[in-house]
Amino acid sequence: MSKGAKIPVGIVMGSDSDLEVMGKAAEVLDELGVEFEMRIISAHREPEEFYEYAKKANERYSIVIAGAGKAAHLPGMTAAIFDGPVIGVPMKTSDLGGVDSLYSIVQMPSGIPVATVAINGGANAGLLAVRMLAMEDDELKERMKKYISAQKDAVVKKDEKLQKTGYRDYHN
Amino acid sequence: MSKGAKIPVGIVMGSDSDLEVMGKAAEVLDELGVEFEMRIISAHREPEEFYEYAKKANERYSIVIAGAGKAAHLPGMTAAIFDGPVIGVPMKTSDLGGVDSLYSIVQMPSGIPVATVAINGGANAGLLAVRMLAMEDDELKERMKKYISAQKDAVVKKDEKLQKTGYRDYHN
Amino acid sequence: MSKGAKIPVGIVMGSDSDLEVMGKAAEVLDELGVEFEMRIISAHREPEEFYEYAKKANERYSIVIAGAGKAAHLPGMTAAIFDGPVIGVPMKTSDLGGVDSLYSIVQMPSGIPVATVAINGGANAGLLAVRMLAMEDDELKERMKKYISAQKDAVVKKDEKLQKTGYRDYHN
Amino acid sequence: MSKGAKIPVGIVMGSDSDLEVMGKAAEVLDELGVEFEMRIISAHREPEEFYEYAKKANERYSIVIAGAGKAAHLPGMTAAIFDGPVIGVPMKTSDLGGVDSLYSIVQMPSGIPVATVAINGGANAGLLAVRMLAMEDDELKERMKKYISAQKDAVVKKDEKLQKTGYRDYHN
Amino acid sequence: MSKGAKIPVGIVMGSDSDLEVMGKAAEVLDELGVEFEMRIISAHREPEEFYEYAKKANERYSIVIAGAGKAAHLPGMTAAIFDGPVIGVPMKTSDLGGVDSLYSIVQMPSGIPVATVAINGGANAGLLAVRMLAMEDDELKERMKKYISAQKDAVVKKDEKLQKTGYRDYHN
Amino acid sequence: MSKGAKIPVGIVMGSDSDLEVMGKAAEVLDELGVEFEMRIISAHREPEEFYEYAKKANERYSIVIAGAGKAAHLPGMTAAIFDGPVIGVPMKTSDLGGVDSLYSIVQMPSGIPVATVAINGGANAGLLAVRMLAMEDDELKERMKKYISAQKDAVVKKDEKLQKTGYRDYHN
Amino acid sequence: MSKGAKIPVGIVMGSDSDLEVMGKAAEVLDELGVEFEMRIISAHREPEEFYEYAKKANERYSIVIAGAGKAAHLPGMTAAIFDGPVIGVPMKTSDLGGVDSLYSIVQMPSGIPVATVAINGGANAGLLAVRMLAMEDDELKERMKKYISAQKDAVVKKDEKLQKTGYRDYHN
Amino acid sequence: MSKGAKIPVGIVMGSDSDLEVMGKAAEVLDELGVEFEMRIISAHREPEEFYEYAKKANERYSIVIAGAGKAAHLPGMTAAIFDGPVIGVPMKTSDLGGVDSLYSIVQMPSGIPVATVAINGGANAGLLAVRMLAMEDDELKERMKKYISAQKDAVVKKDEKLQKTGYRDYHN
Repeated sequence: MSKGAKIPVGIVMGSDSDLEVMGKAAEVLDELGVEFEMRIISAHREPEEFYEYAKKANERYSIVIAGAGKAAHLPGMTAAIFDGPVIGVPMKTSDLGGVDSLYSIVQMPSGIPVATVAINGGANAGLLAVRMLAMEDDELKERMKKYISAQKDAVVKKDEKLQKTGYRDYHN
Repeated sequence: MSKGAKIPVGIVMGSDSDLEVMGKAAEVLDELGVEFEMRIISAHREPEEFYEYAKKANERYSIVIAGAGKAAHLPGMTAAIFDGPVIGVPMKTSDLGGVDSLYSIVQMPSGIPVATVAINGGANAGLLAVRMLAMEDDELKERMKKYISAQKDAVVKKDEKLQKTGYRDYHN
Repeated sequence: MSKGAKIPVGIVMGSDSDLEVMGKAAEVLDELGVEFEMRIISAHREPEEFYEYAKKANERYSIVIAGAGKAAHLPGMTAAIFDGPVIGVPMKTSDLGGVDSLYSIVQMPSGIPVATVAINGGANAGLLAVRMLAMEDDELKERMKKYISAQKDAVVKKDEKLQKTGYRDYHN
Repeated sequence: MSKGAKIPVGIVMGSDSDLEVMGKAAEVLDELGVEFEMRIISAHREPEEFYEYAKKANERYSIVIAGAGKAAHLPGMTAAIFDGPVIGVPMKTSDLGGVDSLYSIVQMPSGIPVATVAINGGANAGLLAVRMLAMEDDELKERMKKYISAQKDAVVKKDEKLQKTGYRDYHN
Repeated sequence: MSKGAKIPVGIVMGSDSDLEVMGKAAEVLDELGVEFEMRIISAHREPEEFYEYAKKANERYSIVIAGAGKAAHLPGMTAAIFDGPVIGVPMKTSDLGGVDSLYSIVQMPSGIPVATVAINGGANAGLLAVRMLAMEDDELKERMKKYISAQKDAVVKKDEKLQKTGYRDYHN
Repeated sequence: MSKGAKIPVGIVMGSDSDLEVMGKAAEVLDELGVEFEMRIISAHREPEEFYEYAKKANERYSIVIAGAGKAAHLPGMTAAIFDGPVIGVPMKTSDLGGVDSLYSIVQMPSGIPVATVAINGGANAGLLAVRMLAMEDDELKERMKKYISAQKDAVVKKDEKLQKTGYRDYHN
Repeated sequence: MSKGAKIPVGIVMGSDSDLEVMGKAAEVLDELGVEFEMRIISAHREPEEFYEYAKKANERYSIVIAGAGKAAHLPGMTAAIFDGPVIGVPMKTSDLGGVDSLYSIVQMPSGIPVATVAINGGANAGLLAVRMLAMEDDELKERMKKYISAQKDAVVKKDEKLQKTGYRDYHN
Repeated sequence: MSKGAKIPVGIVMGSDSDLEVMGKAAEVLDELGVEFEMRIISAHREPEEFYEYAKKANERYSIVIAGAGKAAHLPGMTAAIFDGPVIGVPMKTSDLGGVDSLYSIVQMPSGIPVATVAINGGANAGLLAVRMLAMEDDELKERMKKYISAQKDAVVKKDEKLQKTGYRDYHN
């Protein structure tokens, strides 16, 4: 199977409660024209299915973005089986704020890295995947630069508005 | 295969750096006459072997004690595949003191419990396994009570020594 | 008194404010056909009654599930008196998120283990008790496997729905 | 039994590993001429003895200073049974620095207070007991004021030394 | 001035935003018939007035309960000037949950103790003051015991209700 | 360019979501008659513009107040380029409460200080700038003293109200 | 300039105190035959040089690995200017254990991702870079698989040793 | 008294155990030719002397640098009495790493700011004072720029050394 035939990004999460955050990764990829496939698969509740998923990911995807909360094992276990880059998204939790998810994803032992982004950092997970794919795709890099440029323009406009309105009337 | 043929306890850790702590679980089991088998298997570095191990654990062990540090996935992934009780031992870590290991083990999502003991709590992991096995084994319960009784006597003796020496000379 | 005459699980909490979380343990046991008895007893406010409760638990229950919040002493003190397995459920707290409850339950000194589950992990406490009881009860194990299997099916269905709706319309 | 016949302070700890810290409370009391009795009793390892101790404390002591580490239940359980003031000393722990001991002692539920001092704050526990006893003992208050005054003098002398030596030569 | 002429408890806080929590200390004292005086004085915003307050407290109060939030200096500075027992109440904070208040109050340096209660533990601050005062006041001790007994009865009644209703209908 | 020609304070933030907090710095400066200029510039999204801003700040401002949240780089990077005092305001974050912002701002390496104020401490950032400017401006110092005096009066009035109403009726 | 002419990995750190950890990234790259260039450049102490470095990185490197401690701005500021993937390595710190470095690197705002690895995770940073480069380099992927396979063999050998020696004699 | 007659910087700490860290502030000031006076005065152990010190500081110093550990009240109480800029240095603590000192210094209530630097950040406290004084002192600013420039040169030299030696031989 040629590399070109791979889907660039697989997105996976263990529960549909993670969909709002992981959807932001999908939106970024959609906006920048990067194909992806999104799945709900639980490493804890269906370990065999997960194992199959992660093994097949080696032929199917270039990159996997995995989101999980609390004792978040999905990104690390994906990285143990899939040998491409794995991007981990720690979910905010209602009790510990997501520091549990963060530690469970980022503190991987030597040998098996997970590229961890911020708590609830779905959009950044998508952008990180784009940065990886753009290493060998100049057109994607151009689209990404435009996207970043638009972000910058948004900040510039906010500043211009502030200069006009002053801080007291900015939100009126 | 009859239940009686199972080894009561499997002990597993991902690295020999965890051996000192996990050895304390083994010592407790040895002292109380509970058979066990101890393995070094890494869920991250040899995921296929780990999956095999955890699946076979269903026929091989009644209980699994799993120790791991940092983004500690071994206990939780064992509990996802093995359907007996899994006891998790969070390892102290040099940077975060073990709070990373603790969160990665105890904060399991609903459906897949791990019976978590204290950071570096190898001995308690052994004792917790004994409490589970002693539910149906009166002789083991008696041995356990003697063990606890000896602990109590040790405290009593320390108190007697303190009454004799006073606090200033206790450690002389 | 024969072991068979014991109630398999005692559930205890110090306050009815813990009832919502501990009720989830009860629901799991109800659903899996495990008899239990639920009590509200405070180790702090009625220490003598608590002491009686924990001593009698040795004849009355095989396992005790104890839930408590803040400086949560109920699980650890139960484990000091009752010699079967004690499962501790740390309650979420409004100020510290439950990390106080977690530390007060899981960091038990060597000799007296408490099988700690996640913050607010009532359901997992019930499931952990079931795993312990199922070591010697094949029918219970079968019911438990069906329960787990239903969980898995729920995840599979969510994934199927996602494939049909796409992430943008999943929640519509 | 008349109140005057009580020993003013009982000091209790669960293990002789706490003796160094608790000895500082004893030293303060010795220096200020306050009688005390020091015991090693474990609420976890000898719960019956502990219950007896705490119940008898009502006739025996005016104040109890209790030191404990990790899931530190000794101070809170003492406060549940003994109805005088209980001063809790959280022990530093090697993994979590003592934040586990602190939370387990200070976060007591409404109804059962423990007067908590700093991590490893044995000396301050002694001084807090003195402040309580001195409410009705003018001679003790005078001795306490001299003690505090000596502390102040020590600071003044350090400052004088610094003015003489300069900061570069202070420790030479 | 005779000791009997002192007001038993002074309650002080730096801001009226602490009044809800500190009012619980007042309610306990009111209910147990202990006279108190409540003031709003800020160690930060009116340091001279505070200094006067704390110096006069030596003649005016037996005990001071001081509540404060964030970088909470009020209890510790009171304890530096007033030489009776100081009870510190750490306020919950919106950003750090009150761990900042707790550390700022409990981690006092050797020499100047503050008797710290739980975050937002106003009621326990009142009860701790009562325990101190009751060392020499048998009638107060009797009232306190009745108060504690009523707490116990409330728990017993909740348990009785639970036995009647079952956990599913308890809150209906 | 003469020093007198500088704008005393530049306020900068990376996003208009920080405006509510940073506006409190502006209000303090407005109230005390200190000229300032407020900008929205992102060190992350427009690094070149930011670099220009910080370099020009050397001629344009005496002091810069920079607010930022999460991995808050704006204050530290400003301090790396601008050589006047930089005051950093850590924003509260929804997941970690602002401890991430605080660490990212206050834990600067040796050589490049940032004067950090409390989480969401916009008003104190303004007051800190005033304290710096008032070192050489007696009129400003007088206005600041009146401002502080008014704060004190507000506390005194709250105390007077409390003495009149009692704690039960204070908020009625 | 053709992509092939780029150096695959730039490694950068702010101080030679980070060299031990960052050297592990270099060792991995050396071992797997990936060319890299290692620099010591401080975003705080030489901001202009850093800006030049990060801007030129766009032509010079495919990936940048940046290590930093405390208020660690180097990875995030690199990601603001360099548009390829940036891998951040949080350094352990002597006071906060590295949680300050971790938050300062991982909690990046939406738009500018940093692929964060574990505290002191130099080796994993190297391996993550290899995973990214191996997306389009089958030979590198083969070498990486051999590297991982050797890791696995090491674990297998430890397990074999343990089976032979038993846990008591393993370290003899 | 004319402003010129003030000593530019007062350095104060509560104990000579803080001298090593605070000495780094002094070294910076010495090196940059800024006069200072260093005192050991404890807000807790000699509150009257401290009040006098802080009140007189208004005529004596332009800036005060205050270092303190644990429940660190010295900087905040100085800022309550002295109306110039106060720079707070949180001391590392053996149990909590200094997070207690940091919170006690930085989380000041609205109205009384403390310019907080990093844990053990003595040198940065000195440099922050220099930045404030250099607002109106061009010669001092020039000396400061040279100091910063030397720091930069040191980094450049380390980088040059690394280019020559390579990372394996750098420390040989």
